[in-house]
Amino acid sequence: MATIAQQMKLFMEPQSITAIGISRQTGANAYNLLENLLAYGYPGRLYPVNPNATDILGVRTYASVADVPEVSDLGVISLPRHLVLPVVADCISKGIQALVIVTQGFADADDVEGHRLQRELVEMAQGTGTRILGPNTFGVANAGLHMSTSYIRIPMEANGVGTISQTGGTFVGLTDVRLAGKVIDIGDACDVDVVDCLHYFEQDDDTRVVVLHIEGMPHAREFLKVAHRVVMNKPVLALKVGRTEQTARAVQSHTGAMAGSDLLWDVALRDAGVIRVDDVEELSDAIRAFLTLPPPKGPGIGITTYTGGFGIIAADACARNGMDLVQFMGPTMEGLRALSPKWLGVGNPVDIWPGVSIMGHPRREMETAALRLVLSDPGVHAAMAVISAYQPHLGEEHLPMIQEVARDFPDKPFVYFMYGLHFDEVRRSLESSGTTLAFPSPERAARALMHLKRRAHYLARQLEIKRSGSA
Amino acid sequence: MATIAQQMKLFMEPQSITAIGISRQTGANAYNLLENLLAYGYPGRLYPVNPNATDILGVRTYASVADVPEVSDLGVISLPRHLVLPVVADCISKGIQALVIVTQGFADADDVEGHRLQRELVEMAQGTGTRILGPNTFGVANAGLHMSTSYIRIPMEANGVGTISQTGGTFVGLTDVRLAGKVIDIGDACDVDVVDCLHYFEQDDDTRVVVLHIEGMPHAREFLKVAHRVVMNKPVLALKVGRTEQTARAVQSHTGAMAGSDLLWDVALRDAGVIRVDDVEELSDAIRAFLTLPPPKGPGIGITTYTGGFGIIAADACARNGMDLVQFMGPTMEGLRALSPKWLGVGNPVDIWPGVSIMGHPRREMETAALRLVLSDPGVHAAMAVISAYQPHLGEEHLPMIQEVARDFPDKPFVYFMYGLHFDEVRRSLESSGTTLAFPSPERAARALMHLKRRAHYLARQLEIKRSGSA
Repeated sequence: MATIAQQMKLFMEPQSITAIGISRQTGANAYNLLENLLAYGYPGRLYPVNPNATDILGVRTYASVADVPEVSDLGVISLPRHLVLPVVADCISKGIQALVIVTQGFADADDVEGHRLQRELVEMAQGTGTRILGPNTFGVANAGLHMSTSYIRIPMEANGVGTISQTGGTFVGLTDVRLAGKVIDIGDACDVDVVDCLHYFEQDDDTRVVVLHIEGMPHAREFLKVAHRVVMNKPVLALKVGRTEQTARAVQSHTGAMAGSDLLWDVALRDAGVIRVDDVEELSDAIRAFLTLPPPKGPGIGITTYTGGFGIIAADACARNGMDLVQFMGPTMEGLRALSPKWLGVGNPVDIWPGVSIMGHPRREMETAALRLVLSDPGVHAAMAVISAYQPHLGEEHLPMIQEVARDFPDKPFVYFMYGLHFDEVRRSLESSGTTLAFPSPERAARALMHLKRRAHYLARQLEIKRSGSA
Repeated sequence: MATIAQQMKLFMEPQSITAIGISRQTGANAYNLLENLLAYGYPGRLYPVNPNATDILGVRTYASVADVPEVSDLGVISLPRHLVLPVVADCISKGIQALVIVTQGFADADDVEGHRLQRELVEMAQGTGTRILGPNTFGVANAGLHMSTSYIRIPMEANGVGTISQTGGTFVGLTDVRLAGKVIDIGDACDVDVVDCLHYFEQDDDTRVVVLHIEGMPHAREFLKVAHRVVMNKPVLALKVGRTEQTARAVQSHTGAMAGSDLLWDVALRDAGVIRVDDVEELSDAIRAFLTLPPPKGPGIGITTYTGGFGIIAADACARNGMDLVQFMGPTMEGLRALSPKWLGVGNPVDIWPGVSIMGHPRREMETAALRLVLSDPGVHAAMAVISAYQPHLGEEHLPMIQEVARDFPDKPFVYFMYGLHFDEVRRSLESSGTTLAFPSPERAARALMHLKRRAHYLARQLEIKRSGSA
C-alpha cells in the first residue's frame, strides 16, 4: 500500500492530468485551467474532458473520463455541484487515485444539500484507494513542475516554500513572498487534510519552510504529533485564524471547520515548536528570514546606525521582541572609540556618523569597520544596520560589505532597517546578496530575528531533553 | 514682544538666511547647505559666510556675520564646536533672532567640555531675544518654501505633515510618507523645545497632522497642556522612545535627555489625546490615514472579500484592533443574499466571489453592489475590501467605485487590504483617488482605522465632558 507521502505525490508531482469541466471559453476572465497549464509550460500529459468539444486550445479533448487513453495521476473536477458526484464515480472506476474537486457549495454551503453531497462524496471514495482534495479548493501548485490547478493564473517561484492552506488566497501570494513554491489548498477537507499534506512536505527535499494557514482542525492531536516531527527538520510557520468568537463563526461558514479554543491552540502550537504568526506581513517576513538568514546562537544584538535617533528606535524594537542590546566587551569599545571623536559616548547602538562627519573616515570604511567590531563581540549573536534609503542606488555600495560579513560571520544573522522613500530600489540590491534582508521598520526586522532565535532555542532545548532522557 | 509662534516663524519661514561655515567644496559627499538650498529653489536671500571665499556657487560670500548687508531672519551655524560660541556672539550682536546650531558635541557629548559649551551657549543667548535651535540638529525644513537647513539633501513635499523630532532621520522620511512637510529637529534642545514647536504647528494652517519624535522631555506638564490644546484642533501622533532601561540609557548619550518612566508617558499621552505609536511603520500608516480618511463614527466594520480565507484573516485583525465585526441588519442581508448563490451562508465578511463565479455577476458590478450594501448598513462605520493584486493594472478598474463610495459615504472610511506581488502598482492607482488607502496586511489596515476611531472617540468624550461641566 502507498504511504501517505506517496499518495500526496500524485497530487503534487503528476505526470498526467485529466481535467473535467474545461470550458471552450479562453482569454481574460475565462479562468480556463487548461489555458493556464499551457501558459505555465506544464510538461506532463493533459486530457481535457468536455462532451461538447473535441479540441480545446489545440489539445485533444475527450467526451468522458472513460474515453481518456490512460489513467492520469491526477483528476481535476470543476463542474456545478450537482454534476460532481457522477464524475467522481467515473474517475474512481477509471482508477484515478488523486482527485481535486474545485467546486464550491459542499460543507462550505449553508444548506442541507451541500452537506448531503459532501457525505455522499466521502462514502463514494471510501475504501477505493482514491484520495480527494477539496471540495471548495484551488487544488495544488508546484512551481518546479510549472503546474497549478488554480483557475486563477498565479505567479509561482520554486523558492523552497511549502504551503498548506484552507484558502486559494495563498496561491496568489503575499506582497513580499510567493507562497507557491508548492501549495495545497485543502478547502472543505472532506478527505485530504493538513496531516496528509505535512507528510508530503516532511519528505519533500524542495521544501525548506512549511507554512500553514489553519482555520480549524478535526484531528488536532495527530496534527501536533506530525507537525512536531516536521519542526525538528524544518521550520513550520502557522497563521491560525479564528481568534475571536465572531471570526470563529465566520470560519464555520467558510469551510465548515471549527476554530477551537484560541488559547489552547497557542499553547499547543508552541509546545510542538510550530511558530504562530498573527498577520500576513509577519508571516512573509518570517518566511524570508528562515529562507535567507542563519539561526542566531542567542538573543544578543548589536546595532549600527547613521542617526542616533533611529538607532534608539531600533533598540526599542529589539527589546520589545526579546533581543538583548549587548553591552560590548572592552576590545569592541576600544575599537569603536578609536574610530570616533573623543567626546562621543560610544555604545550600542553604534553611531557611525560622527566618525564620518567629524573624523573624516570614508562612509563605507567606517561602516564596515564598525560592523566588523560589533559582529566580533562574543556577546553579539545578530546585527542590525540602520541606514537611510535617500538615494536609489545606495544599495550597490553596501554589497561588498554584506558579502564580507556573510563570509566572515556565517552564524550571525545580519539585517537592515532602512527608512526613506527609495526603500524598494535599495532593498532590491541589498537582498541580491542572498544573505541579508532589509525591512522598512525596526519592529519587523527585530520580529523576524526573534522568530529565528526562538526556533534555535526550541531546537536546542529539544536536544537537551533528548539527552537528559537517554542519560 | 513676539509670541512664541512668531519667534518660530523666523525659523520656519525665513525671508533670508545667513549661513556660517559654508564650505567651498561642492558635489556629492560635500554636504553643502548652500548647494542644497539652491537646488531646492529656495526663493529667499542667501548670505554664505566664509572668511576664505568671496563667492561660492555664484553667491556673494562674506568674511564675517558683521559684513552681511542685512539682518537675516535665520542664521545657520555649522562649524567645529570650539568655533561656535564666538560666532553665536556675532549673530546676537548683529540682531539675528533665530539661530540653528548644526554642530555636534555639546550636551550630546560624553565629555565635560561639551556640557560646558552648552551651558555657555545658553547663558550667552539669555535675555537677548535670540532663540537657538540645537545644537546637534539638522535644523528645519519647510517644503512649501523649498527650504531646509539639513546638510543632507532631502526629499520634501508640502503634504500637511508637521514633525517635531530629536533626530535628523525624520528629514529623510519613512518608506511610505515624507515627514517634511515641515520638520523641526530640536537636537540637544538647549533653548527651543518641543513646546515651542507645538506653538508654531498649532497656528500653522499648512499643518494638518502633527508628528512628535520624543526621546525625553524636561517640561512634561507644560508639554501635555499645550499638546492637548493642539489635539483638540488636529491629530498629534507621538513616537516616544526609550521604552526599556537599556534604550533609556542610549537616549541619554544621544541627546542628553532623560527618557522618564515609560508607563507614565503612556498614560499621560493618552489623557492628553496624543496618539502614541510604537513603530515607524505604524506612524507612517497613521499619518496617511489622518491625511486621507474621514473619522469613523464608531467601531463597526464591514468587510468584503474575494477569498473567504483572507476575509477571515482580515476579520481577526479588525477584532485585535478594537473594531467590531458588524452583524448586518435585515435589508443588508437580503440584498447580499439576492446577489449570491442560494446555498451561500451570507454574512460579514461578505464573500464576493460566488456571486461572480457562480451567479455570473460581472466582477466590478458585484463588488460595487456588495460594498454599497455594506456601507449602507447603519451599524457599519468603516469598510475594508480584501482584493488580490495579481495583475499590475487592477487598480484602475477600481477607481470609479472608489469615487462613488467616497461621494456617497463621505463619513465612512474605506480601505483596502491587498495581497499579491503587484501591490505597489495597484496601490498607486487606488490611492490616486485621494480618498482611500491600501495596506499589504489587514493588521496595518485595521490599526490605521483604530487610530482614526480612537481620536474620534476622544474628541466626542471631550465634548461631553465640556458639556456636562457647563451644565
